[in-house]
Amino acid sequence: MSELSAATGVPVATVKFYLREGLLPPGERTHPNQARYDSRHVRRLRLIRALTEVADLGLAAVAKVIAAIDGDLPVQAALGAAQDALAMSSRQERPSETSSAVLDEVIRRRGWEVLPASPARRLGDEAIAAVEAADLPGVLERIDDYAAAAEAVARADLDSLRGLQHDEDLVHAAAVGTVLRRPLLDALVLLAQQHETNRRERLGGIAAE
Amino acid sequence: MSELSAATGVPVATVKFYLREGLLPPGERTHPNQARYDSRHVRRLRLIRALTEVADLGLAAVAKVIAAIDGDLPVQAALGAAQDALAMSSRQERPSETSSAVLDEVIRRRGWEVLPASPARRLGDEAIAAVEAADLPGVLERIDDYAAAAEAVARADLDSLRGLQHDEDLVHAAAVGTVLRRPLLDALVLLAQQHETNRRERLGGIAAE
Repeated sequence: MSELSAATGVPVATVKFYLREGLLPPGERTHPNQARYDSRHVRRLRLIRALTEVADLGLAAVAKVIAAIDGDLPVQAALGAAQDALAMSSRQERPSETSSAVLDEVIRRRGWEVLPASPARRLGDEAIAAVEAADLPGVLERIDDYAAAAEAVARADLDSLRGLQHDEDLVHAAAVGTVLRRPLLDALVLLAQQHETNRRERLGGIAAE
Repeated sequence: MSELSAATGVPVATVKFYLREGLLPPGERTHPNQARYDSRHVRRLRLIRALTEVADLGLAAVAKVIAAIDGDLPVQAALGAAQDALAMSSRQERPSETSSAVLDEVIRRRGWEVLPASPARRLGDEAIAAVEAADLPGVLERIDDYAAAAEAVARADLDSLRGLQHDEDLVHAAAVGTVLRRPLLDALVLLAQQHETNRRERLGGIAAE
């Protein structure tokens, strides 16, 4: 276990915790006090680290993604599990909110077939309530632009799974890819904002009509 | 203070904590042991709650956004502060990573003018390193699709500031809008994924070429 810790930079106490929580499969017991860990354990530990530190998931959400990979799920269910993991707060359980009329309208206009009670829907209701409470009408006026961009992202997400042959590869890519793509998109949006801000400043100021 | 707590649902101990941290301005002292709080305090508390609970920011990142609103910053600087707040981990300081060649290439191809040392750039380097380590080549093959969607989001973000007349409104919309738009986009992407997954399943399966 100390070698596993050294190979991944994850402290021994944390490795033990992941074993207890079932996020990491047990090693092969070689002595009463020793177990053998292999490259699958190293990969799994690195994955847990990426999910918690880069994708900022809480442990319950990480468990959902891991269960999707380990369970013999069909790919659509694995995608659903990853989506639910992303919609879970990393901090706390959220109270249920009332459903947003603005979001209902967007879903209707785009013709989206979505579950009315999914965690993603609840996240959307909550996000729109926060934007409304903070008095940001400009954001909601552009919601169709954001929805169109979201569709482009979703198409690229599904395209990235094309041609994967083995079910195992497909489920891994669906579950992990969906989660790790989020911080990538976040970063790209921030960089594009920097660029667009500089561009508009040169063209006469950010608030210019 | 107990009325302020009742009006916002934020516990008194938390209100005291925000006062000590300077996130909430002090009330007007009416007696040695009493202070008057007004509607600005209620609004500010609701904003802090939205930033921590909906946008999932850590307290250091919330302080950055609040400082942008309270400080007499030009709008470009307020936007930059909000972007840096979003790029900060809500969990911990990240070690510096090596710069990603894949991200360099995207930035060059799109002609983005961005700071080489910004938190957004570091976030991007880290996200790409995690995608590479998790063996998800499909995601990086579509990085230009994600970058194009990110540009559309950035344009909508800047469009949402158009025509705001007062500097104060503009700075508030730039700083708060940038932060609260993120969970909205996250939710829209998850809903669009649900729809796109259902659509492709009907058309012959998710992995079909």
